[in-house]
Amino acid sequence: MASDMRAIFQQCFSAPALRSYVAESISTFFFVFIAVGSAICARMLNPDATSDASSLIATATAQGFALFVAVFMAFDVSGGHVNPAVTFAFALGGHISVPVAIFYWISQMVAATLACLLLRVASADQAIPTTKIATQMTGFGAAVLECVSTFMLVYTIHVACDPRLTNGSKKSRNGGLLAIGLVAGAGVLATGSLTGGSMNPARSFGPAVISGDFQNQAVYWVGPFLGASLAALVHQNLVYPYISPQSDVPQPGNGAGEAVLV
Amino acid sequence: MASDMRAIFQQCFSAPALRSYVAESISTFFFVFIAVGSAICARMLNPDATSDASSLIATATAQGFALFVAVFMAFDVSGGHVNPAVTFAFALGGHISVPVAIFYWISQMVAATLACLLLRVASADQAIPTTKIATQMTGFGAAVLECVSTFMLVYTIHVACDPRLTNGSKKSRNGGLLAIGLVAGAGVLATGSLTGGSMNPARSFGPAVISGDFQNQAVYWVGPFLGASLAALVHQNLVYPYISPQSDVPQPGNGAGEAVLV
Amino acid sequence: MASDMRAIFQQCFSAPALRSYVAESISTFFFVFIAVGSAICARMLNPDATSDASSLIATATAQGFALFVAVFMAFDVSGGHVNPAVTFAFALGGHISVPVAIFYWISQMVAATLACLLLRVASADQAIPTTKIATQMTGFGAAVLECVSTFMLVYTIHVACDPRLTNGSKKSRNGGLLAIGLVAGAGVLATGSLTGGSMNPARSFGPAVISGDFQNQAVYWVGPFLGASLAALVHQNLVYPYISPQSDVPQPGNGAGEAVLV
Amino acid sequence: MASDMRAIFQQCFSAPALRSYVAESISTFFFVFIAVGSAICARMLNPDATSDASSLIATATAQGFALFVAVFMAFDVSGGHVNPAVTFAFALGGHISVPVAIFYWISQMVAATLACLLLRVASADQAIPTTKIATQMTGFGAAVLECVSTFMLVYTIHVACDPRLTNGSKKSRNGGLLAIGLVAGAGVLATGSLTGGSMNPARSFGPAVISGDFQNQAVYWVGPFLGASLAALVHQNLVYPYISPQSDVPQPGNGAGEAVLV
Repeated sequence: MASDMRAIFQQCFSAPALRSYVAESISTFFFVFIAVGSAICARMLNPDATSDASSLIATATAQGFALFVAVFMAFDVSGGHVNPAVTFAFALGGHISVPVAIFYWISQMVAATLACLLLRVASADQAIPTTKIATQMTGFGAAVLECVSTFMLVYTIHVACDPRLTNGSKKSRNGGLLAIGLVAGAGVLATGSLTGGSMNPARSFGPAVISGDFQNQAVYWVGPFLGASLAALVHQNLVYPYISPQSDVPQPGNGAGEAVLV
Repeated sequence: MASDMRAIFQQCFSAPALRSYVAESISTFFFVFIAVGSAICARMLNPDATSDASSLIATATAQGFALFVAVFMAFDVSGGHVNPAVTFAFALGGHISVPVAIFYWISQMVAATLACLLLRVASADQAIPTTKIATQMTGFGAAVLECVSTFMLVYTIHVACDPRLTNGSKKSRNGGLLAIGLVAGAGVLATGSLTGGSMNPARSFGPAVISGDFQNQAVYWVGPFLGASLAALVHQNLVYPYISPQSDVPQPGNGAGEAVLV
Repeated sequence: MASDMRAIFQQCFSAPALRSYVAESISTFFFVFIAVGSAICARMLNPDATSDASSLIATATAQGFALFVAVFMAFDVSGGHVNPAVTFAFALGGHISVPVAIFYWISQMVAATLACLLLRVASADQAIPTTKIATQMTGFGAAVLECVSTFMLVYTIHVACDPRLTNGSKKSRNGGLLAIGLVAGAGVLATGSLTGGSMNPARSFGPAVISGDFQNQAVYWVGPFLGASLAALVHQNLVYPYISPQSDVPQPGNGAGEAVLV
Repeated sequence: MASDMRAIFQQCFSAPALRSYVAESISTFFFVFIAVGSAICARMLNPDATSDASSLIATATAQGFALFVAVFMAFDVSGGHVNPAVTFAFALGGHISVPVAIFYWISQMVAATLACLLLRVASADQAIPTTKIATQMTGFGAAVLECVSTFMLVYTIHVACDPRLTNGSKKSRNGGLLAIGLVAGAGVLATGSLTGGSMNPARSFGPAVISGDFQNQAVYWVGPFLGASLAALVHQNLVYPYISPQSDVPQPGNGAGEAVLV
C-alpha cells in the first residue's frame, strides 16, 4: 500500500512527467489564447456578432490552425492532448495512468484559465466570450452535437497516433497532426452557431471561470467526454482492432509520442 | 452458381469487408455532418444567405477540411471513398468488386441520411439545406458543371492513390490526402453558387431525404457519376497508363490503402 | 538540318511529350475553372464586389488550393507548370527545350480558354470576369506588382523542385507543392484589389478571349514573364548556385518530376 | 585583437554568409509585401476596415500562408528567420554569432522597408497601413500580448527545427514549416484587432518608415524580443533539455538548416 503510493508518486513527479505537464500547459494556454482571442477580435470588428458568417470563419480558422500547432508543440513530450476529453479517452484505453491523467487535467484547466485572465487584463477588461448554445437549442441537443463533433476529433486523433500506420517512424506524423487541427476547424464551422463548437471542456471552462458565467457548463463536459469515450471504443474494438504484442501498460509521460497508442 | 453466390457472400461479409463498411459510414457521416452543419451555421448568421460570400467560404472551407479528414480516417481500412461516385469509378476500374461496391453505396447513403437526421433533431428542427441550382441555370448546365468538378476530384484521388508515386511506402500519402480535401474545397468555392457544389451524390441525397425535397436530384447523380468515370478513364489510359504486373483483381475491403489502385 | 527538324519532331511528339501536354491541359483547365468560377460565385453573392473583402478571400483561397492540386495532378508527368511564365523560366534555365515549351504554352492557353467557355455556356451566359487593374493604378505600376508576385511564385517553385533538397526521393515533395499553392493564394490576397492578382498569363488570357476584353492584357504577360525570369536567375546563380554533374540538358516531357531542375 | 576582427570579417562576408543575407532579404521582402499588400487590398474593399471581420481573415490568412512560404524559401540557406526577434532568440541560444545576427537584422529591416516603398510607389501612393494598437489598450497591455504571441511563434520554430525530432533527415520538415506559418496566421486572428498582430519587429518597422508613423514602435520591439527570448529559454532548458554532443558553437550562415539548433 505504502509502496503503491510511492510508485504512483514517483510516476507522477518524475522529470519526464513534470515536463509533460509543462508541455500540456503551454499548448493548452496557446490554444485557448487563440480561440478566445480570435472571438474577441471578431467581436470588436463585428459588434453584432450574430450578423455575419465571417466571425465564425475567423474563430474556426484560428482554432483549426492553433490546434494543429498546439498538438505539434507538445506531441513528443506529452502526447499533445490539449483537451481533458482526449486525456480521458487515453486513460480509458489504458494509455495513460489515472494519477497522471489527473495532473494533465489540472495543467489543462489552469492553463486555460490563465490564458483568459491574461487576455482580460492585457486587453483592458474586454469581456471574455464563453461558448454559448443557440437560444432555440435544448441543452440535450447541444450535448448530442458536442458528443458527435468530439467523437470525430478523438477518432481522428486515434487514427493519427496509431503506430501501425506510421511504421514506428516519425516521418509522416505531421500530416496526421494537420488532420487533427483541421477536424477541429471543421467542427467549429459546423456547430459554432449551434453549440459554440467547443469539443474541449478546458476551452469552455477557462472563459467560464474568468467571466463568471457557468451556464450550460455541464453540456461541455458530458458531451465531449461521452464522444471521446465512444471514439476510443469504436477505434480500438471495431474499426482498427488488434492484439498488443506486449501486455504491460506503458507509462504515460515518458515523452514517447509514438508509444501513446501501443 | 451456388459456389459463386457463396464466394460473393464470403467476400461481402468477411471481417475486413464489414470493417470497411463501418469506416465508410463513419467518414461519410462525418463529411455530411460538417457540410450540412456548416451550411446551417452560416445561414443562422447570414439569414439572407445570398447576400454575402462569407457563407460560401464557411461551407467550402469546412468541406475541404472535412473531406481531407474523412479520407484520412478511413484510408487504411476502406480506401476512404466517402462518395458513391468515387466507389463507382473504382468499381469501373476493377479495383473494387460490384457486390462490395453496392454495400459501400448503402453505407454512404445511410450514413449521409443519418447525419442530416441527427442535425435536424439536435438543432430543434432547423430546416436541412439541400444543394440547389441557381435560378438562371438549366439542369443540363448544372450537370455539366458537377461533371467537371467531380472529374477533378476523382482524377486527384487517382493521382494521390497511385502506388507508383508513393513507392509502396505510406510516408508521403498525407500530402495526397490533403490535395483530395482541398480540391473539394476549391470546387465548392467555384461552383457553390451555381450548382450547390456537391460532387458527391450521398452529400446531396441525405439532405434531400430529410427535407423531402428531391428537386434536381438526378443532376447530383448523373453529373458526378459521369465525371468520375471519365476521370478514371483518362487517368488510367491516357495520362498515367501502365501494365499491372499481376493480373488478378485485388479484393476490396482488405484494408490495404495502397493496394487500391494496383 | 532535316535531321534536326526530325529530332525536334520526335521530341515534341513522343508519347511522354504528348502525355505531358494532356497533363498541362487538364491542370490549367482545372486551375482557370476554379479561379474564374470562384470569382463568378463571389460576384453572384456580393453583386457589388468592391464592397467586401470576403469576395477576395473566396477567390484567393480557391486559387491557392487549386494551384496546389493542379501542380500535384501533373507533377510527375509534365512538371506541373500550369503557367506560361513558369514554362518560360524553365525554358530560360535550359530545363525544357523551346519547341516543347511552345506546345506547353499552346496547351495552357487553349485549356484556359476552354475553361472560360465552359463556365460561360454552362452558367447560362454569366459574364466571365477578367483580371482588372484598380482605377488609380498605372499599367506600369501593375506590371511591377505582377512582376514581384510572380517572382515569389516562380522562386518558390524553383526551391520546391530543387532535387538537392529532396535528396532524390519523392517523399517530401508534397510540402513543397503546398508551398507553391499557398504562395499563389497569398499573392492574390496581397495584389487582388490592385492588379487582379494574376501571376499567370494563361489565367488572364482565357477570360480575355471569352469576354472579348483585352484591356491591359500586356501587363499580365510582361510582368509575369519578367518576374519569372528574374526568379530563375536569382535562384540558380545567386542563392542556390551549383555545378551540374552532367552537362547534357535533360529533355522535358520525360515524366520525371525530380529531373526538372537537374 | 586584429586576428579576431579578421575572423569576424571572414565569417560575416564568406560566400555562404552573403547568400544567407540575400535569402533573408528575399523572404522578408516577400513576407512584408504580402502582409502589407493584403492589408491595403482589404482596406480598398472595406474602406471602413473596423466594420468587418473579413478584413482580418484576409490579412491573417495571407500572413499565415506567406510566413510558411518565406521560411520554406530560405530554410536551407539562412535558416529562414524572416524576423529580427527570431534571429535574436537564435543569437541568445548561441546558434548564430552576434556579428552575423547584426547583418541578418540589417537585411530584414532594409527588405521590409523596400517592400513597403515598392507597394507605395506601384500602387500610386496608397497609404501604407501600420500595425496599430486598439484605442482602449495600453502600450503595456499590447506589449504583453505581442510577447505572448511571439513566444508561441518562436517556441513553434524551436520545436520545428529541433534536429532530434527530424532524425537528421529533411523528410518531415515541411510539416514543421507549415506549423510555423499557421501559428502566425492564428496569432494575427487572435490579436489583430488588439495589437495589430505583428510578432515581428521588421514587419512593423518597414511600414513605420514609409508612412513616417513611429507611434508605439517600441511595443513591437520589446514585446517580440522578450517573447522570443523566453521561448528559447523554456524550450532549451525546461521542456526539451539536452546536452549537446559537441561543445563548439556552430557557425551561422553555413547553409545547414538542420544544424540551426544543434
